[in-house]
Amino acid sequence: MKLTILGCYAATPRTFTNPTSQVLEINNHLFLVDCGEGTQVELRRNKVKFSRIKHIFISHLHGDHCFGLVGLISTFRLLNRETELHVYGPKGIKEIITLQLKLSKSWTNYPLFFHELSSKDPELLFEDEKVTVETIPLNHRIYTNGFLFKEKLGPRKLLINEIVKYNIDVSLYQSVKMGKDVESNDGKIIPNHLVTGPPEEPLSYAFCSDTAYYPEIIPQILNTTVLYHESTFLEINKELAAPTKHSTAIQAAQIAKQANVQKLILGHYSTRYSSIQLFKEEATTVFDQVELADDGKIFTF
Amino acid sequence: MKLTILGCYAATPRTFTNPTSQVLEINNHLFLVDCGEGTQVELRRNKVKFSRIKHIFISHLHGDHCFGLVGLISTFRLLNRETELHVYGPKGIKEIITLQLKLSKSWTNYPLFFHELSSKDPELLFEDEKVTVETIPLNHRIYTNGFLFKEKLGPRKLLINEIVKYNIDVSLYQSVKMGKDVESNDGKIIPNHLVTGPPEEPLSYAFCSDTAYYPEIIPQILNTTVLYHESTFLEINKELAAPTKHSTAIQAAQIAKQANVQKLILGHYSTRYSSIQLFKEEATTVFDQVELADDGKIFTF
Repeated sequence: MKLTILGCYAATPRTFTNPTSQVLEINNHLFLVDCGEGTQVELRRNKVKFSRIKHIFISHLHGDHCFGLVGLISTFRLLNRETELHVYGPKGIKEIITLQLKLSKSWTNYPLFFHELSSKDPELLFEDEKVTVETIPLNHRIYTNGFLFKEKLGPRKLLINEIVKYNIDVSLYQSVKMGKDVESNDGKIIPNHLVTGPPEEPLSYAFCSDTAYYPEIIPQILNTTVLYHESTFLEINKELAAPTKHSTAIQAAQIAKQANVQKLILGHYSTRYSSIQLFKEEATTVFDQVELADDGKIFTF
Repeated sequence: MKLTILGCYAATPRTFTNPTSQVLEINNHLFLVDCGEGTQVELRRNKVKFSRIKHIFISHLHGDHCFGLVGLISTFRLLNRETELHVYGPKGIKEIITLQLKLSKSWTNYPLFFHELSSKDPELLFEDEKVTVETIPLNHRIYTNGFLFKEKLGPRKLLINEIVKYNIDVSLYQSVKMGKDVESNDGKIIPNHLVTGPPEEPLSYAFCSDTAYYPEIIPQILNTTVLYHESTFLEINKELAAPTKHSTAIQAAQIAKQANVQKLILGHYSTRYSSIQLFKEEATTVFDQVELADDGKIFTF
């Protein structure tokens, strides 16, 4: 998986910081997550090929997470896109976009599908042979979802030395990978566990922004490989986090620790602080595998 | 007058070019004209004080002229703006903005007024003691207005030597400036033209984007000080200008010449060309006072 941070600052776009948007590359998909104003320019700056984006996931309808969407959809049209685009987001997102396209007489010439969300329970949004995407209901001032991207458990790994030793025909490899016992070329039944090892551990990525401290998400994100969790505030401004339904860096780290994730990425920083390093310092007092998102930064895992 | 170009390129925001937006400073007003995506960042980059913008004029509802508006309005709220904001634009603009504010539960805490336009004739949008702003109906694929900003004719100028010579009392200066004849301290009636000169020539600025070649605007913009006229294409792509209802640089210059303006500023360039200098070269074959708009450029007149 490759995660490109296009923007990770709260509230408003500024001269050198961008509102939330990121691209997750997973099994040949390029999933765009949130789309604050300026996202299309950040996609260009980070040399992300527009035509590879076929699915856009919008967490909620606050402007710093979605005001760039209508522009991106329009630019796709101007670039003569032909491939389908699927937009997943809160109920209302279809009306916002279609109203603007209608009034500007700029309907897309490519198929555009909206998948509007209103459930308070996790929902499966996308599934193919290798990947699933589901919502993570969050606790913010308006209806908000995080998103959980998971690789499916892959095939078992062939143990080549054993395959040769037991004289297994190549036509049976696929079946062996799927966990079936197998008959060798000389007629013996070989139990699967003698010729295969366990599949690779599937990776997973949980995007959780924006949200108050909300331990209800922990069962769903348990053992996730990487958790992106918002940390709008430092502990010193904890009194601002509760009423605005945002989290502090400490709270993000508490979620990461309880969910036993391998790595925590912090983001959605308020611009009131002198350095984002302060967020890491606070979070690592609770959980030691902390990284800082920043605009243009790429994480590979 | 001071004109700051925030963006002047057609179609989509790109890494180094911005869609249409400009700020006109005239008699202590800061008028924002059009508001493509990213305008709020360009305002910051050009150090324009947000609170001084009280009137925003939107020419039409194509995205490259208005997709930055909802973000700017939202940012004003986050910055705790208190002063009124007036938005002038085509019918539909209120619904676009209010739908998004409603769905994000982010109503402005400052007074926000929409003035929706649908007339095909010029309309007076704003007037105070010194300035008027009116629409210039244009000819584009959707309902579009340019805007004409005009200083009013000021008071006549006192000829100080004559004022002293005719022994005019200081209490009468205001009346003399307004063109009245005056009684001198020794009782004679002095005709106004003996003690005043003509007022300063009032300045005017016409913003015309986007539009096909449309000579119908000429009577309205006759003798304008500065005309900003779109030139999306060069003559070599003239066949694209007509169906998209845009202009070439030559056509912009023809309008400038027929309208007898003092200066033509070109903008709204398609990004297909290697250099914007080509637009100036073409336009100057028709009209010699041509300048090129460019992002971040300031014109004072």
